[in-house]
Amino acid sequence: MAVSVRIGVIGAGVMGATHIRILAREVHGAVVAAVADVDEARATAVAGEAGGARVHAEPADLVRDPEVDAVIVASSDATHEAFVLACLEAGKPVLCEKPLAATADSCVRVLDAEAALGRRLVQVGFMRRFDPGYTAMKAAVVDGSIGAPLLLHCVHRNASVPPAYTSEMLVTSSAVHEIDVARWLLDDEIVRASVYAGRSTTTGGGRLRDPQMVVLETAGGVLVDVEVFATAAYGYDIRCELVGETGTAALSPPRPVEIRRAGHEGAAVPIGFSERFAEAYRRELQAWVDGVPGERTDGPSAWDGYAASAVAEACLASLADGGPRDVELAPRPSLYERETVVPAG
Amino acid sequence: MAVSVRIGVIGAGVMGATHIRILAREVHGAVVAAVADVDEARATAVAGEAGGARVHAEPADLVRDPEVDAVIVASSDATHEAFVLACLEAGKPVLCEKPLAATADSCVRVLDAEAALGRRLVQVGFMRRFDPGYTAMKAAVVDGSIGAPLLLHCVHRNASVPPAYTSEMLVTSSAVHEIDVARWLLDDEIVRASVYAGRSTTTGGGRLRDPQMVVLETAGGVLVDVEVFATAAYGYDIRCELVGETGTAALSPPRPVEIRRAGHEGAAVPIGFSERFAEAYRRELQAWVDGVPGERTDGPSAWDGYAASAVAEACLASLADGGPRDVELAPRPSLYERETVVPAG
Amino acid sequence: MAVSVRIGVIGAGVMGATHIRILAREVHGAVVAAVADVDEARATAVAGEAGGARVHAEPADLVRDPEVDAVIVASSDATHEAFVLACLEAGKPVLCEKPLAATADSCVRVLDAEAALGRRLVQVGFMRRFDPGYTAMKAAVVDGSIGAPLLLHCVHRNASVPPAYTSEMLVTSSAVHEIDVARWLLDDEIVRASVYAGRSTTTGGGRLRDPQMVVLETAGGVLVDVEVFATAAYGYDIRCELVGETGTAALSPPRPVEIRRAGHEGAAVPIGFSERFAEAYRRELQAWVDGVPGERTDGPSAWDGYAASAVAEACLASLADGGPRDVELAPRPSLYERETVVPAG
Amino acid sequence: MAVSVRIGVIGAGVMGATHIRILAREVHGAVVAAVADVDEARATAVAGEAGGARVHAEPADLVRDPEVDAVIVASSDATHEAFVLACLEAGKPVLCEKPLAATADSCVRVLDAEAALGRRLVQVGFMRRFDPGYTAMKAAVVDGSIGAPLLLHCVHRNASVPPAYTSEMLVTSSAVHEIDVARWLLDDEIVRASVYAGRSTTTGGGRLRDPQMVVLETAGGVLVDVEVFATAAYGYDIRCELVGETGTAALSPPRPVEIRRAGHEGAAVPIGFSERFAEAYRRELQAWVDGVPGERTDGPSAWDGYAASAVAEACLASLADGGPRDVELAPRPSLYERETVVPAG
Repeated sequence: MAVSVRIGVIGAGVMGATHIRILAREVHGAVVAAVADVDEARATAVAGEAGGARVHAEPADLVRDPEVDAVIVASSDATHEAFVLACLEAGKPVLCEKPLAATADSCVRVLDAEAALGRRLVQVGFMRRFDPGYTAMKAAVVDGSIGAPLLLHCVHRNASVPPAYTSEMLVTSSAVHEIDVARWLLDDEIVRASVYAGRSTTTGGGRLRDPQMVVLETAGGVLVDVEVFATAAYGYDIRCELVGETGTAALSPPRPVEIRRAGHEGAAVPIGFSERFAEAYRRELQAWVDGVPGERTDGPSAWDGYAASAVAEACLASLADGGPRDVELAPRPSLYERETVVPAG
Repeated sequence: MAVSVRIGVIGAGVMGATHIRILAREVHGAVVAAVADVDEARATAVAGEAGGARVHAEPADLVRDPEVDAVIVASSDATHEAFVLACLEAGKPVLCEKPLAATADSCVRVLDAEAALGRRLVQVGFMRRFDPGYTAMKAAVVDGSIGAPLLLHCVHRNASVPPAYTSEMLVTSSAVHEIDVARWLLDDEIVRASVYAGRSTTTGGGRLRDPQMVVLETAGGVLVDVEVFATAAYGYDIRCELVGETGTAALSPPRPVEIRRAGHEGAAVPIGFSERFAEAYRRELQAWVDGVPGERTDGPSAWDGYAASAVAEACLASLADGGPRDVELAPRPSLYERETVVPAG
Repeated sequence: MAVSVRIGVIGAGVMGATHIRILAREVHGAVVAAVADVDEARATAVAGEAGGARVHAEPADLVRDPEVDAVIVASSDATHEAFVLACLEAGKPVLCEKPLAATADSCVRVLDAEAALGRRLVQVGFMRRFDPGYTAMKAAVVDGSIGAPLLLHCVHRNASVPPAYTSEMLVTSSAVHEIDVARWLLDDEIVRASVYAGRSTTTGGGRLRDPQMVVLETAGGVLVDVEVFATAAYGYDIRCELVGETGTAALSPPRPVEIRRAGHEGAAVPIGFSERFAEAYRRELQAWVDGVPGERTDGPSAWDGYAASAVAEACLASLADGGPRDVELAPRPSLYERETVVPAG
Repeated sequence: MAVSVRIGVIGAGVMGATHIRILAREVHGAVVAAVADVDEARATAVAGEAGGARVHAEPADLVRDPEVDAVIVASSDATHEAFVLACLEAGKPVLCEKPLAATADSCVRVLDAEAALGRRLVQVGFMRRFDPGYTAMKAAVVDGSIGAPLLLHCVHRNASVPPAYTSEMLVTSSAVHEIDVARWLLDDEIVRASVYAGRSTTTGGGRLRDPQMVVLETAGGVLVDVEVFATAAYGYDIRCELVGETGTAALSPPRPVEIRRAGHEGAAVPIGFSERFAEAYRRELQAWVDGVPGERTDGPSAWDGYAASAVAEACLASLADGGPRDVELAPRPSLYERETVVPAG
């Protein structure tokens, strides 16, 4: 009867542990079979929580392990390219946290390797595509109920960030989610980017160029603006409104209970992404696991990972000197041809 | 490594098929091992969708099947008692859709059987206790943020009901959920019930006494009012506000996207319970499956099923003659002693 | 050109001073010409603020003052009847704060006097009929967009009440507004009342039977429930939802700004009625002043004042002994015949 | 006793008629004394509605009329400068609809004339400063509850515009309101402007560069983005969110009633500005009339009118060629020195 998909996870930090916990508790048909981490004690601890997964000292061994059917890469950013390439070599489906690789150029090496293989095994961890709110927004575009898209307004606020977080990471670590969301919602490539950095907030010690405002333009002429605010203090808050020719569709974040007390009415704003996007992560993992046996990968592809990195690099160039930058994309390999989505009426 | 819990499902109608679909797609560690239904073709069809579960012509055979670890009873109401008793006899955990049995008296027979067994194997399908909104309301009571409860306002609206639905079912099939929610949120028993039936809606052909308004009083003096409206036309809408001494907590139903178009802004209201409570069903089943190996049943107990039926019977008596009715509960067996919850602050 | 209407105000307490301030600052075509109060110093102070109105030691003198075109009665409840009768005798339009008179029987004396006069000069201060929210609810009933009314849910919460406030005043001073709103929204008379008083809140010292739940039934079979909670602590909060055969219409209280800070998002709840219903008071006074020259009184009539008092008395009887009470209304004089409102569609 | 302020209105089109109607029905202490319009029949009709105001064929005669205490200029844009200068010459307070004059340079002539006079008689019709929502946002800035401002997000959507409306008018007629709001909320001057025009909507025939996105930068480093969408089809929708260092404050537009029907819940969006900003217009006019006798003008000054025009001109230059433009402001005459507002905490 039902045979579970055996998952190996590289990286047992916050992100890897989150995936392992979800796989081991809420995903049908998944078993966490192996864990690898540069910190072997951490790997062992997390493997224990997942019901006794094997621990590999070497990620390469995990990838080759015959009792591992598919791999999640959640290690440090610089290591992603090598581990994804190893998975391609081993012919195993891999879900790689963003970024796909350290630079747009290194993403191209992954594209080349996958194209050479001739089949898609890579999914990039842009989990928002699985969030019920974004999914409903996408449906509103596709069903034609708000007309053809014209503008997209995005807000990405973190309550706070770790000390190692830099001004560039507002783009590469935070706004990159909006870059993917924009490409996916609009079914369009981004061709130009401008970043504005005004007065920075003083609450975080004034260390960061924070907030920033990103303006993106798509090939189809849609304008996208993104507020990225890494130390917004009050909570983790993600907003998105798509403006079409006849209406708009906007995220309405999950607020399961309304409280009235002490002269106020309203709801709690979550503090972190793992609470806000818990359901998105669960659905991402369930869909990915479901696709492993048949090598079906409907999620964000290596191409999506590459394009997001290319746009992010244009943003960084704009942030550095203040002017707009064109995004130069490599030709899209035929492996990543989109199926044409015909919007309704 | 991970061994799946093998579930047998009795009843392959709407409710049973919903459970089977969730178990087979979204519940970690569950396998649908067997299905039984009076309509064997229907059982076979549903079993096929679940990946090849065995089909039993006789529910009793399913209960006794050594490859079934736990049972879900989702057959017609009149059959619940017998199947639950069979599960108890077989020593297998059982999740029984409401009602636990056809009458409060027959519920007592289940209580007696379980008490004789000396351990709790029965969970009743009051899935709202697993809904994120109700869970957050419960947390607001327990953490003391709204003060001690004084009033509970409930609204239960169905868009429409099948032809077989009767005026009594507004209580026994619909308001019974609010009866359980009130007992659970307030951690209190209901001692008196009054039902008001005013002018009935004409949209459903005038066949039903619909809507009805139920007023409940708890042992602790909390007042509960419930609007039950079976043919509310515009959608399936469940509302609940708990009024405490210093504040209130209210359900804020999931509305993942806000649409503005054609002179209006707002959100879609779901048409049915399976959409509104999809997440509650998933969490209910995951928690129940998780508990099967250790026979842990934190969900609504047989006592909760009995108490809800007893209150519903008082409501029906009040509906019949218009006056208030006292609820007479049998003594609570020690097996069902509550753990004391100490509310904060 | 424009001649101002000269208003005399009896009572310079909170309510009278509120009316005077609005008349003197925001109502077109009104002049506060005279003020009377048992506390002459208070009258003088308030008259000064209004730009130098005359002060009368005797309310009767104010009513007879030839330079007073119309009168507002905002003195203590026990005095209303006498002052309204004096206005009728003087043939001057009068806006009387609720209650119209101390008892339903004394209201009848006002009805008789006005009927003898043969024209309507009395308006009762049920200002909610002028609130933009209630007005929009009324429009939704009349235009047929939610179908014929079936249920009305009301919530009336005060943050706190003065020491002199009694358990009976939850009905006569607070719920009486909902009684009028129900009669007006439903265009129907209330025929039966039941009051439930469960556990009382401990925050106010336990002095009051607070909260109470009132259930009203109309001649047309509509059920109305009213939560009245005099010491709700968190704010002044008025809610109302009308349930029709095909939809519902609910108050959405004014919340001009949404604030997100410190882990929460939401809005301030006003503390008092004068903030919540500021616009209703302004519109009430503007409409009343506009009607003075032509003796047009579209607002709540003496009959509405009487009916509200009769229903409140039935509520008090129910509160005293717990059972339902029928409302006995005197025949409606032809002077108060309603114009027939034909609901659409 | 109370002496009414006698208002003369130049321009009896939509805007002038709106002012006249409000003055004649809802403003305390105001009388519409005279009306002038190039279309004398229109002037006569509107004057009649206002209770018999005098009609002047020549606006100059209206300004000089000894029975006119103060003037409203609501004629065509090109005429504003001359009429305002005439009012200054006559020493009469004037409320001028935006724009103050046809160009920033011509605004300077008004500034010079008023400075020469040595006292402020001019108010510009940026009525949003009187809207309860914007007023509450301003309060949230001043009281320090959201921290020092960093970003301001604005949305300005019209359902449709008249045939004479041009692509430039998205800036000069629509976004100019946001330009004023930004300057006022932030108490800061705008120093740079960029306008993005992507794909235009097809619903209006493709005639306009519509929508546009405006990015403004203030002297203090705050970034402001403004969506202007002249043919948004679904309704008139104005949004604004101010992001501070510790929180945000956003407009929550008036929605007095929530309707649930036909599978949806939500509220009506108004179709036009006069409905959305009815209360702002009323408050603007009441405050202006109150200030006439003492020549107190707390509203937007001639300087505000000039600065808005200067920023709008920079926007138009950016729209023409796509690059950012610096805003060059003339020195601020001492007559327009701001009082220092010290933000709290």
